[in-house]
Amino acid sequence: MNDNPTISVLGTGRIGKMHAELIVRQVPGLDLHSVYDVYAEGAAAVAADLGVPAMSSVDDILASDVDAVAICSSTDTHVDLAVAAAQAGKAIFLEKPVSLNLAEVDRCVAAVNAAGVQLQMGFNRRFDAAHAAVQKAVADGAVGDVQMVKITSRDPAPPPIEYIKVSGGIFCDMTIHDFDMARFVTGSEVTEVYAKGAVMIDPAIGEAGDVDTAVVMLTHENGVITTIDNSRQAVYGYDQRVEVFGSAGMAVSENPREHTAEVHTADGTRQQNIPYFFLERYIPSYLAEWHAFVEGLSSGTMPLTIEDGRAPLVIGLAAWMSVREGRPVKTSEVSA
Amino acid sequence: MNDNPTISVLGTGRIGKMHAELIVRQVPGLDLHSVYDVYAEGAAAVAADLGVPAMSSVDDILASDVDAVAICSSTDTHVDLAVAAAQAGKAIFLEKPVSLNLAEVDRCVAAVNAAGVQLQMGFNRRFDAAHAAVQKAVADGAVGDVQMVKITSRDPAPPPIEYIKVSGGIFCDMTIHDFDMARFVTGSEVTEVYAKGAVMIDPAIGEAGDVDTAVVMLTHENGVITTIDNSRQAVYGYDQRVEVFGSAGMAVSENPREHTAEVHTADGTRQQNIPYFFLERYIPSYLAEWHAFVEGLSSGTMPLTIEDGRAPLVIGLAAWMSVREGRPVKTSEVSA
Amino acid sequence: MNDNPTISVLGTGRIGKMHAELIVRQVPGLDLHSVYDVYAEGAAAVAADLGVPAMSSVDDILASDVDAVAICSSTDTHVDLAVAAAQAGKAIFLEKPVSLNLAEVDRCVAAVNAAGVQLQMGFNRRFDAAHAAVQKAVADGAVGDVQMVKITSRDPAPPPIEYIKVSGGIFCDMTIHDFDMARFVTGSEVTEVYAKGAVMIDPAIGEAGDVDTAVVMLTHENGVITTIDNSRQAVYGYDQRVEVFGSAGMAVSENPREHTAEVHTADGTRQQNIPYFFLERYIPSYLAEWHAFVEGLSSGTMPLTIEDGRAPLVIGLAAWMSVREGRPVKTSEVSA
Amino acid sequence: MNDNPTISVLGTGRIGKMHAELIVRQVPGLDLHSVYDVYAEGAAAVAADLGVPAMSSVDDILASDVDAVAICSSTDTHVDLAVAAAQAGKAIFLEKPVSLNLAEVDRCVAAVNAAGVQLQMGFNRRFDAAHAAVQKAVADGAVGDVQMVKITSRDPAPPPIEYIKVSGGIFCDMTIHDFDMARFVTGSEVTEVYAKGAVMIDPAIGEAGDVDTAVVMLTHENGVITTIDNSRQAVYGYDQRVEVFGSAGMAVSENPREHTAEVHTADGTRQQNIPYFFLERYIPSYLAEWHAFVEGLSSGTMPLTIEDGRAPLVIGLAAWMSVREGRPVKTSEVSA
Repeated sequence: MNDNPTISVLGTGRIGKMHAELIVRQVPGLDLHSVYDVYAEGAAAVAADLGVPAMSSVDDILASDVDAVAICSSTDTHVDLAVAAAQAGKAIFLEKPVSLNLAEVDRCVAAVNAAGVQLQMGFNRRFDAAHAAVQKAVADGAVGDVQMVKITSRDPAPPPIEYIKVSGGIFCDMTIHDFDMARFVTGSEVTEVYAKGAVMIDPAIGEAGDVDTAVVMLTHENGVITTIDNSRQAVYGYDQRVEVFGSAGMAVSENPREHTAEVHTADGTRQQNIPYFFLERYIPSYLAEWHAFVEGLSSGTMPLTIEDGRAPLVIGLAAWMSVREGRPVKTSEVSA
Repeated sequence: MNDNPTISVLGTGRIGKMHAELIVRQVPGLDLHSVYDVYAEGAAAVAADLGVPAMSSVDDILASDVDAVAICSSTDTHVDLAVAAAQAGKAIFLEKPVSLNLAEVDRCVAAVNAAGVQLQMGFNRRFDAAHAAVQKAVADGAVGDVQMVKITSRDPAPPPIEYIKVSGGIFCDMTIHDFDMARFVTGSEVTEVYAKGAVMIDPAIGEAGDVDTAVVMLTHENGVITTIDNSRQAVYGYDQRVEVFGSAGMAVSENPREHTAEVHTADGTRQQNIPYFFLERYIPSYLAEWHAFVEGLSSGTMPLTIEDGRAPLVIGLAAWMSVREGRPVKTSEVSA
Repeated sequence: MNDNPTISVLGTGRIGKMHAELIVRQVPGLDLHSVYDVYAEGAAAVAADLGVPAMSSVDDILASDVDAVAICSSTDTHVDLAVAAAQAGKAIFLEKPVSLNLAEVDRCVAAVNAAGVQLQMGFNRRFDAAHAAVQKAVADGAVGDVQMVKITSRDPAPPPIEYIKVSGGIFCDMTIHDFDMARFVTGSEVTEVYAKGAVMIDPAIGEAGDVDTAVVMLTHENGVITTIDNSRQAVYGYDQRVEVFGSAGMAVSENPREHTAEVHTADGTRQQNIPYFFLERYIPSYLAEWHAFVEGLSSGTMPLTIEDGRAPLVIGLAAWMSVREGRPVKTSEVSA
Repeated sequence: MNDNPTISVLGTGRIGKMHAELIVRQVPGLDLHSVYDVYAEGAAAVAADLGVPAMSSVDDILASDVDAVAICSSTDTHVDLAVAAAQAGKAIFLEKPVSLNLAEVDRCVAAVNAAGVQLQMGFNRRFDAAHAAVQKAVADGAVGDVQMVKITSRDPAPPPIEYIKVSGGIFCDMTIHDFDMARFVTGSEVTEVYAKGAVMIDPAIGEAGDVDTAVVMLTHENGVITTIDNSRQAVYGYDQRVEVFGSAGMAVSENPREHTAEVHTADGTRQQNIPYFFLERYIPSYLAEWHAFVEGLSSGTMPLTIEDGRAPLVIGLAAWMSVREGRPVKTSEVSA
């Protein structure tokens, strides 16, 4: 009766659960087939809530007639699942990052390309209305030839140290979104990376081998210079801004406010804070990402491919090399 | 198994359908029992989409064990349905306006009070985060003694003439929200109304006996002066602002933007428009309204009562009298 | 050697002193000839500071070859001085209001017109860059047919009671600027006035026969409805905003901030206040007013004439009648 | 009679003329003694306009009883004039940069310190109300421990090529203001510089040996990382922003608008541009700089000293070394 494509969500942690709920409640052209998680009870609860089966194995899912899988499990499982799904001929939605290991990413790229399946990387920020409008202003020529890009990306509070330990470090976990944004708004690959990192928020982050504060300068193939600044702790909220400067002007995406009320007194004007939690800011972008996926299934062209998953990891690895060696690093120096 | 209260939505037009969807998808503490519409096919489609039964009569619904009804049908049916629901002991969510006829409103007030059932009027704007923050700033004393209030409320485009003909006119259909807002942010009843109306947008609106542009001045019991301006057509979007001025300062709710991107060129800065469609702006307020209803069912106190449905109608009727007679009118001059 | 026109400033109180200083320091095309004040010591100090003579009588000034006079003395002396200056063939810059007495205004109009001298009324706000841009947007058609105007005009603190007693009351002293603004941005005369006034700030203002809080609704010849709100005390600063709404959009002038710094913390965002003192906000408009005067001397056409001094007084008198009688008043009801 | 200190302005080009005018018209506590320029006609015109003598030699000025000199001549004359003035015991206002040659700067530092005269460097942006409020927020602890600083500094259009050729290049001419700002808001010296420069606007700038687009990353002694971006051509105006991020929040200075009018239509909201010309933005800061100088003469402590002139030049020279060598450069590597 219903000829919507179907999808199974693999991994029902915070982000997988959100994707499953969005698909069921707000994506009319896609049907949730089932969910799966190694933690079976978690999958069962999500399945019950959404009225779909919780499957007991990925093999069962790949053997079914489901059209697509959303890979939302822990990063270390991404490549194996994506390769298996590709070989089973399923379309794939793949959460970032593909992997922290470039050789593994290359194995995934090869398998996906060999199978010829459709794959969309989950870089949701491309679908944020404000950031997308910045990219569109560039594409429409409103800012002329792009010369400089500035990206601010700051979390409200650091994640647990246990998470940081397996995250690949700030550049592969957090800045990777900004590397994708830099490629998105400029439409140009990155050739050189200079990065500075520091531990300013929590010494435990440093003990885990990571930094919590970072500034990165990227040089693109077309000469554009991108600057990115990251912090794991902006106490005023989830600070996410993009600025593209060019020969004809500037396009920026500012932070929204939680709401628009202002109070004016003798002491000045007080505005509401920006959103604190990333879901407050970005839920509409996750939803738009799914609409794009449905559109991609139908048109045959996904807006982000597996190559869009590989490139930011290379930049992230170059950033780490730059921090360790205290010098600008060519992305061509990074190898699997 | 599930001991959530249940509700049946009566009327599945645009607003009733929205309420039913919100209840199912985003109000965890309330279960949708069923839907009903005199246009059975409409109800059936909504019911199928949401996985609940479409009932064939209101009597069946009131005879069932449902806990509450949401009255979202056409205005002329509100009072009969509310009286019947009250007599059946159901809690009631009642869309605005109660009725265009004050005697009918009084019959409804009497029935609801006699039955002792809980009732929440559907003035959703009280639940908008920005407007609510303005009211909270007043309640917290941040603006001191309130002296003047300004409310701007402009639609992006007029409704169909057929709708206007049965709407009660701009003051009872559109401004009634602003009358409620004036009572909400001041916490004081309105004693006098002076209104000017004009037909500036579409002569057909005038031929239907209505105006499309209006300015209203209210005097409150506590001396505060409120000014409201309305237009049926703000081409730049759905313009909704509240400003409260007092001895210690001013609280305002500004319009949000559709998104926060800006483009700066030699010609100036261009920002995105404000939302065009009322649902874009106010969906979160409708949702917050339901959370308040659930809370009210449990606590026994609804944030808006049937009296909050009556008062703005009196003001609207006084506004019409003021326009007709070209003079300030006391609300005490309005009688059923 | 220098063939700039010359001007003598009559009245060297706060506003006259400011005008004299502006002319000397920032108006290259106009030379300050001399100053005069009934309080000779005040005039002498200003004269010494600016390097011009302080004259001992107005007669001496009018008998000299000075080209123009700026009448900045107390309101009750305006008409006598303007009539004498007109009869002496001098161009006139006249501070608002012309007079509080309409018969006197008419005498002034007659004398100025009979003499055929040039006269510019000192309604400086027309020359504020933001308000002027609003008017220009209207004139350029950017807002389409004007339908509603809203003017907010609030002082940071009340003037001394002694001043209030001779001021003509809020409508002829303070709102008169807003009546001029309403005429300026609409380009249409006012036919009807409805006003509410209240004493909310200082009972002594009421005892002096005045109000400190007022809301006024104007109907223009072309049907536009203007709403004005005034307060003698906005603790957050000198609040001056104009909003013009029409069939094609809306033009607004917002308040500037003292500076653009913002501080974002966990408690929200704090912006600097708007200017507190009227000179902080409006000095550039006073300067632009002088440039327009110089231009008018040369072109033969002043941007504001004595008629622009009469019309707002009629509106102010109608506003007082409306408050006293509690009804809308036609401007045609006001007579000398 | 008048016991104000006196000052002679050396150099009456654009900036010297501005300073002389400000001193005469808006700095009550300082008297303009005379002006001088190698181009005698230029000096004569300014002198005539301001009513002071144009002196025929610097020697005459230094031999007079003038209290101070303002050195506003071309950069290559700064040190000789400053040394001579110091030896003559005059207080000195010195425009930036001290010199493009570090050995010369050191000679100046030595002479000024040996003479014990007061000297204020002309870094006017420290006196901009918004930037100063950012620094004050840092000093007051409102942003906590500073972690990152971002400075955007873009000119509306490039200067003439002839100027660029003698300017010392972008880092010593334009970015030097930002290096000063970085030291000002952090209160910490810079230890390392990494810079990228590019020619994106005009090839002639490249042929002159300069760049027109630059991004610089500074590491401060206290660990703070500052990022600066510069362009010689922002078509939307003179873009000047500072952002300080720390453990307790963020302080920013945004660009002001030329005025506050906005036009809202179906196509979005259009705001006025930011100021295009640097004087439009920064005149009040030049004025505040003079008030600080007068205060410094009296208190004995200048807010900026000759050391504040030396430090940014070192950073600028390090930036050039970084661009040439493609690596981060320690400021300790720069020597005279």
